[in-house]
Amino acid sequence: MADTPRSHGRLSITASLVPRDLMGETPRLAGAWTARIVTLFPDAFPGVLGESLTGKALQEGLWALEAIDLRRFGEGRHRNVDDTPTGGGAGMVLRPDVVARALDEALRGAPVDPGRWPRVYLSPRGRRFDQATARRWSQADGVTMLCGRFEGVDQRVIDTYGLQEVSLGDFVLTGGEIAAQAMLDATVRLLPGVLGNQASAEEESFSEGLLEHPQYTRPTEWRGQSVPEVLLSGHHARIAEWRRAQAEALTRARRPDLWEAWVARNPKG
Amino acid sequence: MADTPRSHGRLSITASLVPRDLMGETPRLAGAWTARIVTLFPDAFPGVLGESLTGKALQEGLWALEAIDLRRFGEGRHRNVDDTPTGGGAGMVLRPDVVARALDEALRGAPVDPGRWPRVYLSPRGRRFDQATARRWSQADGVTMLCGRFEGVDQRVIDTYGLQEVSLGDFVLTGGEIAAQAMLDATVRLLPGVLGNQASAEEESFSEGLLEHPQYTRPTEWRGQSVPEVLLSGHHARIAEWRRAQAEALTRARRPDLWEAWVARNPKG
Repeated sequence: MADTPRSHGRLSITASLVPRDLMGETPRLAGAWTARIVTLFPDAFPGVLGESLTGKALQEGLWALEAIDLRRFGEGRHRNVDDTPTGGGAGMVLRPDVVARALDEALRGAPVDPGRWPRVYLSPRGRRFDQATARRWSQADGVTMLCGRFEGVDQRVIDTYGLQEVSLGDFVLTGGEIAAQAMLDATVRLLPGVLGNQASAEEESFSEGLLEHPQYTRPTEWRGQSVPEVLLSGHHARIAEWRRAQAEALTRARRPDLWEAWVARNPKG
Repeated sequence: MADTPRSHGRLSITASLVPRDLMGETPRLAGAWTARIVTLFPDAFPGVLGESLTGKALQEGLWALEAIDLRRFGEGRHRNVDDTPTGGGAGMVLRPDVVARALDEALRGAPVDPGRWPRVYLSPRGRRFDQATARRWSQADGVTMLCGRFEGVDQRVIDTYGLQEVSLGDFVLTGGEIAAQAMLDATVRLLPGVLGNQASAEEESFSEGLLEHPQYTRPTEWRGQSVPEVLLSGHHARIAEWRRAQAEALTRARRPDLWEAWVARNPKG
């Protein structure tokens, strides 16, 4: 699953496959990785994703973002999207028929293979998002995400559309929008060309399974504190050794789970 | 880039509730929980937090948000905020002197007790954010958050200011801004008055340690699928029993870690 083979190369997602350019001015390269987000708050996108490296990549068409307004598919004059939970209880539940109409648009022309185009429902009940998921998604052609609100979405729409529930972590958000942005950020930065010349040392470090060593920069002397002497030595092997020892100590102290996994993969010679 | 309808209107409303002069001694809105965010992208705030329940609460002054532009504290004509890592390596590291000046502003007048005012550095090296952290922060007076970028921040500023490193999860983001928004969302919704009449069944469920049961709503019949019959029975005890069984089965299947912890706390009678 980690290396989803793309037998036909990059899918050419052309304008004809996409109903309309929902984000307006977004330029799009043929085959650009595309995120389609079903949300009640389309104005919240791109949000932070419009800044910095992800924003630059969006401008350059290295990826595309379509925020699809769930309200457009609502029922009646008030465009209702939710109703009370069957069987009673607090809050409101997103209606299956309304969500289905939005998903039909958000999946139009997309590959049905979930390895090539994941269908994601952002939910605290889901499998936790992690770097491996980001890497897998970045190798797909794009992703469709459904942002929940209220007490969730009707289970039948999750089942019918084969949505995979993915969670940002063990905490409750008012909606899926921020979770979607976090997952998109982690995924988009792995797309070819997005990080540019900035070698992703951090990602490497994380991939390896250790937390990153402490970093220092100028001024060398600050408030009476100097940077560790070894870093000023110019001795590359000693610096690498020191950093590795720091990363190991940090990981052992802060994340015994990661440490155990790392030790299991790297038995001492 | 896609045209971004930013919540400038909401921002200006916020500004009227928040002291404009951060340099002065003007206190926060009496009693309002306050988030001060040091960031290179102040325009990214409030972002999604300006929508929905968190946005309404922001407008009503139930909490306050101050985005502090790190660039303002940069060095020289170009307002440089970063420099190369001492000892070599890829990327750039935020300078301790620049960050310290921004933090001094972001901590002015705040309690020094980290229980009353957590000082947070958003970092994948940190302790993972969870619902218990959100609950704890919501009981403080506010929080100061430093959003990292590049390869991180000089370790000396973390040590000097006693910043606690908190991670959104095991993945790498281009910066701390989205992580800050996720943590603020989870925290702010727990502040008194923010959820209003919407009883937080979801939070209750999560607090209890089980994933939430499936939800259903109208239409009762959809694409040939009916909602489970028990939910239509009107028999409250049977409905509660069914939901509990579903929540237990889901938790057992998806999150053995949560399940084991729950069983340990709830030995069968």
